[in-house]
This record gives sequence, structure tokens and C-alpha cells, in this order.
Amino acid sequence: MFEKILENVRKSEPIVHVITNYVTVNDCANIILAAGGSPIMADSKYEVEDITSIANSLVINIGTLNEDVAEAMIKAGKKANELGHPVILDPVGVGSSSFRKKIVFDLLKEVDFSVIRGNISEIKTIYRGKGITKGVDVDENDIVTDENIDETIAFIKKLSRKTGAVIVVTGAIDIASSSEKTYIIRNGHPLMTRVTGTGCMLTTVIGSFCGANSNNILEATAAAVCAMGICGELGHDKLEEVGGGTSTYGTYIIDFMSKMDSEILNGGAKIEIR
Amino acid sequence: MFEKILENVRKSEPIVHVITNYVTVNDCANIILAAGGSPIMADSKYEVEDITSIANSLVINIGTLNEDVAEAMIKAGKKANELGHPVILDPVGVGSSSFRKKIVFDLLKEVDFSVIRGNISEIKTIYRGKGITKGVDVDENDIVTDENIDETIAFIKKLSRKTGAVIVVTGAIDIASSSEKTYIIRNGHPLMTRVTGTGCMLTTVIGSFCGANSNNILEATAAAVCAMGICGELGHDKLEEVGGGTSTYGTYIIDFMSKMDSEILNGGAKIEIR
Amino acid sequence: MFEKILENVRKSEPIVHVITNYVTVNDCANIILAAGGSPIMADSKYEVEDITSIANSLVINIGTLNEDVAEAMIKAGKKANELGHPVILDPVGVGSSSFRKKIVFDLLKEVDFSVIRGNISEIKTIYRGKGITKGVDVDENDIVTDENIDETIAFIKKLSRKTGAVIVVTGAIDIASSSEKTYIIRNGHPLMTRVTGTGCMLTTVIGSFCGANSNNILEATAAAVCAMGICGELGHDKLEEVGGGTSTYGTYIIDFMSKMDSEILNGGAKIEIR
Repeated sequence: MFEKILENVRKSEPIVHVITNYVTVNDCANIILAAGGSPIMADSKYEVEDITSIANSLVINIGTLNEDVAEAMIKAGKKANELGHPVILDPVGVGSSSFRKKIVFDLLKEVDFSVIRGNISEIKTIYRGKGITKGVDVDENDIVTDENIDETIAFIKKLSRKTGAVIVVTGAIDIASSSEKTYIIRNGHPLMTRVTGTGCMLTTVIGSFCGANSNNILEATAAAVCAMGICGELGHDKLEEVGGGTSTYGTYIIDFMSKMDSEILNGGAKIEIR
Repeated sequence: MFEKILENVRKSEPIVHVITNYVTVNDCANIILAAGGSPIMADSKYEVEDITSIANSLVINIGTLNEDVAEAMIKAGKKANELGHPVILDPVGVGSSSFRKKIVFDLLKEVDFSVIRGNISEIKTIYRGKGITKGVDVDENDIVTDENIDETIAFIKKLSRKTGAVIVVTGAIDIASSSEKTYIIRNGHPLMTRVTGTGCMLTTVIGSFCGANSNNILEATAAAVCAMGICGELGHDKLEEVGGGTSTYGTYIIDFMSKMDSEILNGGAKIEIR
Repeated sequence: MFEKILENVRKSEPIVHVITNYVTVNDCANIILAAGGSPIMADSKYEVEDITSIANSLVINIGTLNEDVAEAMIKAGKKANELGHPVILDPVGVGSSSFRKKIVFDLLKEVDFSVIRGNISEIKTIYRGKGITKGVDVDENDIVTDENIDETIAFIKKLSRKTGAVIVVTGAIDIASSSEKTYIIRNGHPLMTRVTGTGCMLTTVIGSFCGANSNNILEATAAAVCAMGICGELGHDKLEEVGGGTSTYGTYIIDFMSKMDSEILNGGAKIEIR
């Protein structure tokens, strides 16, 4: 079902402008290349408008914020909106400080996002406009299960309607939803949470897929979520074979993105559409 | 002897707030996850107090400094002191510039550290209040040997008394000491010096172990030093098997931290207590 | 032919001061260590003069710029010039924003560079004093081929005369040239472009080789280009054996730098001198 999505990425090699944290930035650049895109990281307010103008999409990740970069994010976001480029937000740990919350709500006011991806605690913080997250990880009380999935989808659809963005909640069960259509995705492996940046990386894969499929944001986003989850599964299978640990696992996840093709993607996707 | 130390880390998953350089930050985040902790990197003066408040320990590493971050380090350190969280200092290359020396001595004046970890040249620079180090590496004249270990322990104990911190000197022989009790640790492998950030990583493992064992700082620190050294040994054994180079070695070091358990730690620890 | 070049690096362990982007900085530090050097990353205007004074060479990479770092680059460059240290410039994506162009032309005015390394689009932007590059990658119209290599060498020699620097253009065919002598190098593998930072890494290997061979800049630079290309070839051979992807490939490239010796370097170098 996702055939053209991945083909478009590989064919057009979208340039993805990424304003992100310095913790996981190298893995993000490498997984964009592995997915078939071309990353450019730039966060100076003096150049982000130029940079985003030559790109096909913009990813904003607030993992390590400061005031200057926050200003650059808004500048870049407005320029990308003006040019009609998809803009993707990763509100890392938004509930963990007042500063992050302020910047995220400023961003949501000033910039129209095509996609917002976070864990359930981050997305709930945005939905509620308040709340505290446990560091950058998810609060146990928030975890999405088969029992609470209907109410989760309901609030995600509301948030999508309010923001105009496709909302992606990742965890044991992943959800990607517009205000009308929802993909429930059951790919991935729990060990992915022991590799830093798998969330950030997914967000940049979404940026790559949307950059090459800007008229099909929801499907491109769902395909990216599946692709990342499948990399996590295949990487874990290989990890078990060789008996490696979490750092080798991180390497394998990116490896499998570079070896992803339509057959692997469509064969491996565990999707339910509602 | 270290059984409960590691169990406490795995059980409580301490949140470790890390203010660090952008060179080795990704490896630090990954080894904290591998050790069983949950890393959060944040260095803006506008949020470090919020962030450190939800954490269990704070690690300050001066590897790439600027004025804004230095201000954030002091703010975070004071808040962590106020909350009784362990605070760990890694004075990377403190002797290599006047700026670093100034910031480190400001930090030592304003913040109470639980642990200070450096190579012998860095620790001597702090002890003497002056001196030049060869970049971020150790000066050959300073190397700890079986011949000079007694006098080294003597000055380390003095520095511990003066600062109130457990002092850790790492090199071919590692020493972790309070003003009264000293662990001499002979784990590790010389090739670890050819992987950037093994020192920074160890400091964050200490942060993880202390975050989960805040009432047992010296033992937690010694256990972290042993754990890191054992990872270096096991990683090197595996490296020899596969015939890899230094980048593969870095991967294996983190891998073995994710596979560490009490049996490996206690079986592998090469410790002498004085 | 390059025997003493590599031996000098391994023997003298040159300290390489690197002011660079936060995307690929970890790989740069690791490949400097693998090559036999000792990296120190520092970019605060308050310390770069101290740091560069204890180093043997300086590498300036504009991959992620801001105003403060630009000021530090000029300070460090002037100090390194004063001390006679080799200074190497990597003008990453110089054509992608007005800000980058301004900073690069300021640097070229204020600092004497020993080596300037970029892809053909970056070097052409410097040569022309204008032009737009496609992100940080090369413009297809600019690619160096056997057909246009003579005119490419002609303009590179002119740029070398104008700047006083050895000019390195990397791509499918690599060229390292002074105003008089040119090395054409056909090492490397196309997959290297799918690993972020192979260009940045090469620039720091050049910094390491020049730091230990400051009276032989052109040959040291050519040797570094060959060494990096050979790592790309050997890494790819091993990658095919194990069936890995692009992240494993990045690991192998650094691995082979750590295993490089004069025999591998001289046996593998594919050089034509004009």
C-alpha cells in the first residue's frame, strides 16, 4: 500500500532541513541519508530562512533548546509555511520545563505544522496545555493500551482538528491520525527505548517521507512509522543472532533503513486503519 | 560486593541530568540507557533548574564550554545541591585554557560536588590550582604507576577532604577515594584511550550509579569505574575475535554495559581497598 | 611514497584543534584518534586562542555556524597563523546561505589557510565568490569527470595561487593541488556519500596528517585523501561480506583508519601526479 511513498523518497532525494538537539543529531542525519533523503542541519537565525528555502521539508525538534535557537525555529517555520513545505514538530520532553512548554506553545501559535510526533506524555501535554513528563520518557499512567486506545484516538483526532496537523503518538502501539482517518501501527520492538534518539530519528524519517510526498502527508507519515518499526524488528532479529547489545542495535536500526524497499515495507507493515 | 548497587540502578531507572559537551553527548546518553538510567540533556539557563528538579542526579562536563552554559551549570548545580541530588563533575581539559580553569574554580566555589572524575593531569590541575595539560589527554610526567601510587593517594585524599567530594582518577590504574577510604581498580584496557569519550561516558555511568545509590556515593562510584573497565575488557576480547578497529570497539563498550549484571560486575572487578 | 607521512602522525600524535559542527563532531574526534592524532574540540571565543596554542594544527568547519563561533574561528585562525600551525578550512555548504558565504569570505580575508577542502560545488562557490549549492551536497552540473578534469585542475590551481592554500576537491575523483603540482586520486567508494560526515572526517584526517608534517603540506594532504578513500574501499569490501547497511559502513570506515599502516596506504593509493 505504501509503494509509491518510498519510491518517491528514493527518486527525489528530498532535502530535509533539521533544527534539532545536539544529542541525536548525527543519527538523525544518517537515518535521513539511509531513508533516501539529504539532510541539512542549520539553526542560526541568520541563515535558517535561506536554508529552508532550498529544502523540501523542515523538522523542528526541541531536545536541547536555547533562546537563539527558539527564535530560529519560528523564523524557519514561517518561511517553510510561506513556501508550502511540510513542517514536522518533535516536542521532546515538552512537559519537563516551563521553558520548553512556552517555546512549544509559541511555535504552535506562529507555525502551521503538518505533523506533530511525540510520546503519549508529550502529546498529552500539548493537548492539555499543561502537565509534567518524566524527563524525556513517557509517564507510566499515560501508556496506550488496547483498553484505552479508543479514548486515545478520540483525543488525538481532536488535537488534529485543533492544530491542523497529523498527530503521531509512538509507544508500544503507534498511532498516526488526521482528524478523520487513523492508522494504528503495531511495528517496533521494546528494546528501541534503550537506544537514544529512536524517536528523534523517526521524526526525521517522517520529514524525509513527507518531503517527497507533500500532497499525501498522512500516508507518508504512517509509512515512515511502519518503516522505522520494521527496522526495529529486523534489527532486533539480527541482534539476537549475533548476541550484541544496545549500541550494536542502534547501528542495525539505521542499517535496515538503508536496506528498506517497498517489498520489506509492505510485507512488514502491521497496520489497522480506522 | 557491588550487587545492590547495580540492582538499584536497574530497578529505579534514575533520571540523570547531563550538561555536557557536544562531542561525546550521544555516547553518554546511550551508555546511561545501557546502564539502566534515563538521560536528559539540557543546558539552557532558562530550564536547567526545572530539569534537574525532576532528575535523580546531575553530571557537569566542561568539554565544550561557553559563557551561557557555564552560567547554566552553576544554576543547575545549586538547585541539585538544594534538593540533595548527587552532583558529579568532569573537568575535561581543565588545564588547557584559562577560561576552563576559571569556570571550574567558579563551579568548585559555588557547587558542592559528590564526585569529581578526571585523568591525573586534570585532577592535579584542580589540586594545584594551576598547571597546563596536554590538550584533553594526560601529561606523561603525571602517569600513575605502582611506584608513585602512595603519594598519589595521599594528594587525592587531601583533595577529597578539601572539596568534600569522592575523587576519581582514571588511567592505567584507576583510583576512587574519599578522604578516608580508597579503591584501587585495575580494570580496563589501553585501547580505550583511542575511543573518544570513554572518560565522559564513565562520568555519566557514575552519575547513573550515584543517582540510584545516593546514600552510598563512594561504593556506587567504585562500582561504576569497575563496570566501565570490565566493558573495556570484554569489548576488547570480542574485538580481537572479530578483528575490528576502534569504532567497533566503542560500540562494544556500550554493548557490554547494556549486558552488565551483578555476576559479571562482581566476577570481573579487580579491586584493592585501602 | 607516503611512508614517513603516516609514521610521523603515529609517532608525534599531533594535537588537532577542531572548531566544527555538532552533527559529525564525534566521528571527527574518533577518526583523528584512529589516524594517530589527539583531538581537542573547543569553540568559545574565550578559549580558542589558548587551545590552539597547545595544538599542532587547526581545523575550521562551518557545518553549523552561529555568530559567536564565527568570531572564535577568526580568533583561532589568526593565532594559529601567528604560531605557524597548519590551518585547514572545510566550507560545508558555503553556497547554501548568504550567512555562510559572508563568514567564509571573512575567514579567507583574515586567516591564511594551508588547505581548503570541499566538494566541487563548495570550491566553485569560493572560486566564483557566489553561487548556490544544493544543500550540503554537490550540484550535478558541477561533477568532476574525465572529460572536464583538465579545466577543473586549471581553476583549482588558480584558486590555490590566489589563496596560497592547497585546494582539495573530493568526489568520485579527488584532486589535491597546489598552484604547481596536482594529485589526482581515485580511491573511495560511492556509498561513502550515504554516511554523514565522510567529508568532515577527511578534513580532520588532513588536519592530523598536516599537524605532524607541517613542512610537507601537499604530500600530507594527498596521503590523507588516499587514506580516507582506502578506508572507504576496505570498509565496503567488509560490508559486502557481512551484508550490513550504511551505519555499519560508517563504523568500518573509522575502523580501517585505526588499522591503517604504510603498507596498506602505499599499496592501496591510486594516484596520478601532474
